[in-house]
Amino acid sequence: MDKLLSEVLEIAQELFDEEQLSAPIPRVAPDEMRQRVDLSLASTGIPVDDVMARMRAVVRVTPRTSSRRFFNQLYAGRLEIASAAEMLTGLLNVSMYTYKIAGPMILIENEIIARMCRFAGFPNGFGIAVPGGSMANLVGMMLGRNRAMPNLRNNGADGRRLTYYLSQEGHYSVVKNAGILGTGRANVRLIATDELGRMRVDALEAAIEKDLEAGAVPCAVVATAGTTVLGEFDPLRAIAAVTQKHGIWLHVDGAYGGTLLLHPAARQKLDGLELADSLTWDAHKLMGIPLMCSMLLTRQRGQLSANFQETADYLFQADDYKLNPGTRSLQCGRRNDAFKLWAAWLNLGDEGWATRIEKQLHMARYAAARVQRETKMTLCQDPASTNVCFSVEGANSKQVCGALHDSGKALIGYGEVRGEQVFRLVTVNGHTEEQDIDRLFDDILAASGL
Amino acid sequence: MDKLLSEVLEIAQELFDEEQLSAPIPRVAPDEMRQRVDLSLASTGIPVDDVMARMRAVVRVTPRTSSRRFFNQLYAGRLEIASAAEMLTGLLNVSMYTYKIAGPMILIENEIIARMCRFAGFPNGFGIAVPGGSMANLVGMMLGRNRAMPNLRNNGADGRRLTYYLSQEGHYSVVKNAGILGTGRANVRLIATDELGRMRVDALEAAIEKDLEAGAVPCAVVATAGTTVLGEFDPLRAIAAVTQKHGIWLHVDGAYGGTLLLHPAARQKLDGLELADSLTWDAHKLMGIPLMCSMLLTRQRGQLSANFQETADYLFQADDYKLNPGTRSLQCGRRNDAFKLWAAWLNLGDEGWATRIEKQLHMARYAAARVQRETKMTLCQDPASTNVCFSVEGANSKQVCGALHDSGKALIGYGEVRGEQVFRLVTVNGHTEEQDIDRLFDDILAASGL
Repeated sequence: MDKLLSEVLEIAQELFDEEQLSAPIPRVAPDEMRQRVDLSLASTGIPVDDVMARMRAVVRVTPRTSSRRFFNQLYAGRLEIASAAEMLTGLLNVSMYTYKIAGPMILIENEIIARMCRFAGFPNGFGIAVPGGSMANLVGMMLGRNRAMPNLRNNGADGRRLTYYLSQEGHYSVVKNAGILGTGRANVRLIATDELGRMRVDALEAAIEKDLEAGAVPCAVVATAGTTVLGEFDPLRAIAAVTQKHGIWLHVDGAYGGTLLLHPAARQKLDGLELADSLTWDAHKLMGIPLMCSMLLTRQRGQLSANFQETADYLFQADDYKLNPGTRSLQCGRRNDAFKLWAAWLNLGDEGWATRIEKQLHMARYAAARVQRETKMTLCQDPASTNVCFSVEGANSKQVCGALHDSGKALIGYGEVRGEQVFRLVTVNGHTEEQDIDRLFDDILAASGL
Repeated sequence: MDKLLSEVLEIAQELFDEEQLSAPIPRVAPDEMRQRVDLSLASTGIPVDDVMARMRAVVRVTPRTSSRRFFNQLYAGRLEIASAAEMLTGLLNVSMYTYKIAGPMILIENEIIARMCRFAGFPNGFGIAVPGGSMANLVGMMLGRNRAMPNLRNNGADGRRLTYYLSQEGHYSVVKNAGILGTGRANVRLIATDELGRMRVDALEAAIEKDLEAGAVPCAVVATAGTTVLGEFDPLRAIAAVTQKHGIWLHVDGAYGGTLLLHPAARQKLDGLELADSLTWDAHKLMGIPLMCSMLLTRQRGQLSANFQETADYLFQADDYKLNPGTRSLQCGRRNDAFKLWAAWLNLGDEGWATRIEKQLHMARYAAARVQRETKMTLCQDPASTNVCFSVEGANSKQVCGALHDSGKALIGYGEVRGEQVFRLVTVNGHTEEQDIDRLFDDILAASGL
């Protein structure tokens, strides 16, 4: 293993060097890719050295999500201490179902969850790491469904319509999850949004009342804290007043924006969260932890166990239930996603997160100011968090993004805002500096023929 | 990052040394653990060096799943080339929803899936990596449900009873998943097993017919290839005759035993698999890949997309649908679990897997022979794969396992076979040698007072 490890180190070093040079992000078309690197498997194996060489070739042509010119997703950049912990995680290879097998890693996950619950305003809360924000939303939605129809978990649905409520700007996983949970995609009501893209509470209430009159069973309202395209926040306190009035579960999809809870001022965007029943919060987005690192938190402890527990004597053989997360998990075997977040949190402390977020928010404001200075550019709206959406006169954002991608200058995406296709810049990389933003805008102008 | 990497290397080195010495597996009670390592997070961060020291302390007290004295789970041991790839995976940090972001890793996942489909007998098959065998079972069960009640995905269940069929020895995740999918835990029929713990086909057929007469809608039969306690295989060909006759989806839970497909002789245990509709196959169990590495395969391509696809223009911005696995995934953002399996497969080739499996099977036979030589031990049955279940006269298996755990001599679990609590030894670690098995039995005898 020693030799392998030093080769890993060498490949990693080469990767870091290329990233730091802000080398172009390699865009290689699939057919060309297949020619450039031999990916095929065979009956007979090849020596370890040859495998390492093949791995090195693959690393060279893999998109560099930690490049400072990668603005495409709701995650980017490398938080070094978290990456170091992630490497050890793979070597330790514990499964997070029991304390017997995962030992201190269970205590570490519980420590993180307690800390996050505190910031969420859930003093009696609990939670678990799940493989992604979509899955966290699935769990929150399921908890609401099972509360709304208590016999369902054991006996199945009784044929009444089961409804969910999401804004038109909410994440597609909620619709998909309704398909998985068996309540039906068509029973997700897409609630109209206001001029900034936030759920309209009057429209929500009207939709719920209409469904109730028709005999439907509302399972949950899924409010969004940080929408995918605009980064906007639904008005949680006003929504909670509606869900409490009707006794409906309130799940908050804070996969993206939940992290703002760690910023003393920006956390106001999530005002009212303490009234929610469950929360999705991805640490692999704004917090920069390697994929995956998603948390599902509930305001009241005990709800996950009540909805997931099964008997498995051959597995849960020792220790208190709190120390056997397998009894409250969507999964059985489960990767350790906690160690890397814990390492980063130790290093940064709450204060370090606030500083990091301040920088991310600053970069969004900086980019928005640049858009406003450019006569040919139009800002969709002031950034609510780290998304900056804008259009360029005479330019097709899809084509320009494609050209930047092909030339390797930058990776940035587009989205639809109020029916218009626009550029969507996301300033989540903690290493992005003002000069990176300026260079990106210069490139966009050039690629737009301006 | 350079300094961090070399410290990671140092910690890893220490870990490997302790593992190779067959040092006792550290059993530390939760309260003692909290005293020995300071896990608490704070407002103010601490320097990176201190974090690394804290991480090193945690690594020292983490159960060593790669120790040759770890026999507790359905996974154990480290396949070095896969661990090396896993370390790079964390640094590359691509998300597996699109080719745009994950590049060659998508082609690599598809290459692996094609290879596994070939061994499964699914020439027109396809699949995807999912976070664990439970989730793979969830997907297979959902595909069956959606075929049985085609309106359900969009409109919800219509109130008819939706049933699943699993043997009494099948995995608990199937019951749990019926709760998640909204079909109801009580609607999973636990079918009686024969004297070896394999599903009785006559009992299966009787259960299906009874449900059909009562107006229920059978969603799927979940057959098990490698049961958790005994490692036994349900008779797939005979079960397929029943599911085909009634037009019911057949999902095979081969999370554990699917790997036997790679062994020319042992693959007979899965005879008839080519008639199944979907398969769960975990590469993180018998194949020794770091967690998680689970595959869900379908016999017909297109079924995953048909059941998971949503529109998300801001995400799926380029390339063919086959290159955008996000459109056929349970998840949205998704960790790259393919690279490590690809690296191992390159190195071993199909032939190398067969050799590895032969050794694992040999160790089970070797252990069974030892049990049969010991006058105070009784073998439950000949091992079908890598599980060896046995009892020791006058010894309580739970207490003995606890004593071995406490003393750090070995980690081994117990299970229930035909109403009796017995030792369950699992020979999945590719590095286990005969002397390790002998030492384990000596320790069990000593801890049993014999």
